[in-house]
Amino acid sequence: MKIGIDSVDTLEFKKFSDYSISELASKSIINLLKKTKIEKNEVDGLIVSTCANEQYLGNIISEMVGLNPKISTKLENLCNSGTSAIFLGYSLISSGVCNSIIVTGIEKQNSPGNQLLWDITRGVYDLPVHWAALYAKTHFRNYNTSEEDLALVSEKNHKNANNNPNALFYNKVFSFNDIMNSKKIVEPLKILDCCYPCEGCSSLLLVSEKLAKRSEDPIWIKGISQNNQGASFANISFDLRSIASTKIAAREAFKQSKLKPSDIDIAEIHDAFTILEILAYEDIGFIEKGNGSKFIKQDRIHTNIRGGLIGCGHPTGATGIDQTNEIVLQLQDKAPRLRQRKNCTRGLIHNMAAAGTSSTIIILEK
Amino acid sequence: MKIGIDSVDTLEFKKFSDYSISELASKSIINLLKKTKIEKNEVDGLIVSTCANEQYLGNIISEMVGLNPKISTKLENLCNSGTSAIFLGYSLISSGVCNSIIVTGIEKQNSPGNQLLWDITRGVYDLPVHWAALYAKTHFRNYNTSEEDLALVSEKNHKNANNNPNALFYNKVFSFNDIMNSKKIVEPLKILDCCYPCEGCSSLLLVSEKLAKRSEDPIWIKGISQNNQGASFANISFDLRSIASTKIAAREAFKQSKLKPSDIDIAEIHDAFTILEILAYEDIGFIEKGNGSKFIKQDRIHTNIRGGLIGCGHPTGATGIDQTNEIVLQLQDKAPRLRQRKNCTRGLIHNMAAAGTSSTIIILEK
Repeated sequence: MKIGIDSVDTLEFKKFSDYSISELASKSIINLLKKTKIEKNEVDGLIVSTCANEQYLGNIISEMVGLNPKISTKLENLCNSGTSAIFLGYSLISSGVCNSIIVTGIEKQNSPGNQLLWDITRGVYDLPVHWAALYAKTHFRNYNTSEEDLALVSEKNHKNANNNPNALFYNKVFSFNDIMNSKKIVEPLKILDCCYPCEGCSSLLLVSEKLAKRSEDPIWIKGISQNNQGASFANISFDLRSIASTKIAAREAFKQSKLKPSDIDIAEIHDAFTILEILAYEDIGFIEKGNGSKFIKQDRIHTNIRGGLIGCGHPTGATGIDQTNEIVLQLQDKAPRLRQRKNCTRGLIHNMAAAGTSSTIIILEK
Repeated sequence: MKIGIDSVDTLEFKKFSDYSISELASKSIINLLKKTKIEKNEVDGLIVSTCANEQYLGNIISEMVGLNPKISTKLENLCNSGTSAIFLGYSLISSGVCNSIIVTGIEKQNSPGNQLLWDITRGVYDLPVHWAALYAKTHFRNYNTSEEDLALVSEKNHKNANNNPNALFYNKVFSFNDIMNSKKIVEPLKILDCCYPCEGCSSLLLVSEKLAKRSEDPIWIKGISQNNQGASFANISFDLRSIASTKIAAREAFKQSKLKPSDIDIAEIHDAFTILEILAYEDIGFIEKGNGSKFIKQDRIHTNIRGGLIGCGHPTGATGIDQTNEIVLQLQDKAPRLRQRKNCTRGLIHNMAAAGTSSTIIILEK
C-alpha cells in the first residue's frame, strides 16, 4: 500500500511567544486543514511529537481544533521525535487502522531534552556540543577536514535561511568571516557551527492511497527506516568516523525505495552542528567516506534549502516534521519563489538524536 | 495478519522503591526475555508507555538491556497509555515494519498525570474523584444504584487482589463494612471506592503470526479499538449515564473480532473508581444500561481477577499493560493457582483516561 503526504504547515520559528504548546499546535493544524480536501471528520489519528512535559496533548489538541480521532497519542524520542511520529503514522495507515493522520511537532524553547542527563558516560561534558566536537576532531585528523569546511556549511545554511521567513535566523546575514570569527565554544566548534534551540511547530497530513486520490499533488513515502544504537555516547564512540545509525537507516530506506543516493534531487540533513552535515553526506552515501567536505559546494543535490537546523533553529519535536515539510513543498513545486528548486522529483530527509545514537531516513517521491 | 502476545511480565506494584524508571523497566524486560523463545536480537521494536518526564527512554532502556530495536519510542496518553502503546505495537507489526515488539509500561508514584490541569472546565474540582462522583450521582438518580453497590465492587476487587502478590493491596483485607465505613472523599464516594496511584511496571512481547509459531501458547489479538472524545469533562458531561468512548470502542472491537459480549469469559475493567466498573459492564454490553449493579455478583464473566485498579494500585502508564497481562495469563492457564479461572477462551481488556474522554478495548483469544 502506498502512503502519501497530502499537505503541510509550518509556523514561524521563534525564540519565544506567549502561546502555549497546545495553542501553537492548534493554530498549525487549523492552517493545515485549510490546505486539504480531507474533511476534519475524516482525520482518524493525531500523533503529537514533543519533548514537553504536558500530559494528554493528543486529546487536548483534538478537542481544541474539533478533531475526533480514533487514535490519539503523544510521543517523544528527543531530536528524532518528528520522524519517529511520521513513522508511527505511516504504520497506522499501512496496517489499515487509520486512513488519515495528522502528525504535529511542537516545542517551546524551555522544553526539556537539550541534554541527556541519563548519559553519565559523558562525564562533565554533558552538552551536545562536546560530542559534536569529538566527531569534528576525528574528521579533521582522519580526512584533513578543516574549520573552514565547517564554516562553509554554516555559511550555506544561513544563506538558505534568508529565503525562509519561518526560519529563526531569517534576515540575519552571516558572512564566512563572521562565522570564522565567532566565539569558540568547544575546540574546534564555534557558536555559528551550532544550531539554536527555539520554539516551533510543524504539521503534516498523512493519507492512505485511497484518500490520496482527492489530494491535489500527493507526495509518496517510498522509503522510511529508523535505526537505534542505544542511548549513550560511550556505546557508539569506538568509531567516530561515521554515524552508524544513519548509515544503516539510509541503507534500509534506499533498499525499500529501490533507489540509490544519486537518484535524490534534494535533501534535508540534520545539521545540529556543521560537522554532522559533512558526516551525513558520507553516511547517507552521497559521496565516499572522508570526502564530505568536497560535497558542500556541489550543486548535484540541493541540501538544506530550508536553512537546516543551523539557519531555522531547532524546536526539538518539530524539526523532523519541518524537514519533511520542506521536501514535500519542493516536490510539489509549492515552496516560496526564492526557495523553490527546479525539477525535483525525489527528496530525502535525515533526522537524528543524541550523539547519533538514533537516525531516521525518509525518501519521498512526487 | 494475526498478531499474538508471546509472553508477559509484571513487577510487584509498590508505593515506592529506590529503583529509577529505566531500572524498573530493564528488570521487567529481562524477566520477559527469559520467558520467551524469541531472541533479544529479534526484538525489533520497543515502545515505552509512561507519564514520566524522563527523555529518550526507548533508547536508554534498549541500551540497558541490550536490545537493538529498529523502532524505539516513548508515548504518553494518561491512564490510557498502556493500551495505546499496545495498539501502536499492533500497527507496527501488522504493517510489516516490525516482527516483534516489547511494550513496557512504567510509572513511579510521583509521575505527573494524576490531574489534567489543562481542563479548566473542572474549575476548582480538578481531582479525578470529582468527575467520578458526578458519574456516581447520575447513576444513583437514574438507576437506583446505591453506595452499597459501589462497596460490593470494592469488596470483590480487594478480595481478588489478595490472590495477587504483585498487587499493592495484597494481604490487606477490607470487609464490606470497612468499605462502607471508610472516609468519605466526595459525596457519594469513599476512599475505598478509589484506586491508589503507585509505582509499577508491566511488559509484554507482541509477535507476528510467523514468529508466533515459536511461541508455546500465543494469545491472539482478535479485536482492538480506541475512541477519543476530546479531553475535557465539559466536552462529555452532557450525558453522564454512560461513557461514550467505551461504548464506541467496545462496539468496534466486537465488530472486528466477530464476537459479542456473551462470548467473553473473563474481563479486566478500568475501575479507577468503583462506579466506573458498573458503567463499564453496561457500556461494554455485558448487561443492559442501568442494570450494572446487578452484574457485580454474577459468575458468568470473571471480572478484575487481578484485583482491578482498586486492589492492584494504578501505576498510570503500566495499568493497561498489566490488565492485558492478566488476561494473557488466564487464557494461557498460567495464572497463579489461587487466581487461575477455568476454561477461559476469550478475554477483554477495558482501559480509559481522563473522565472517560478516551477508552481502548482489546479482545484476546487463545
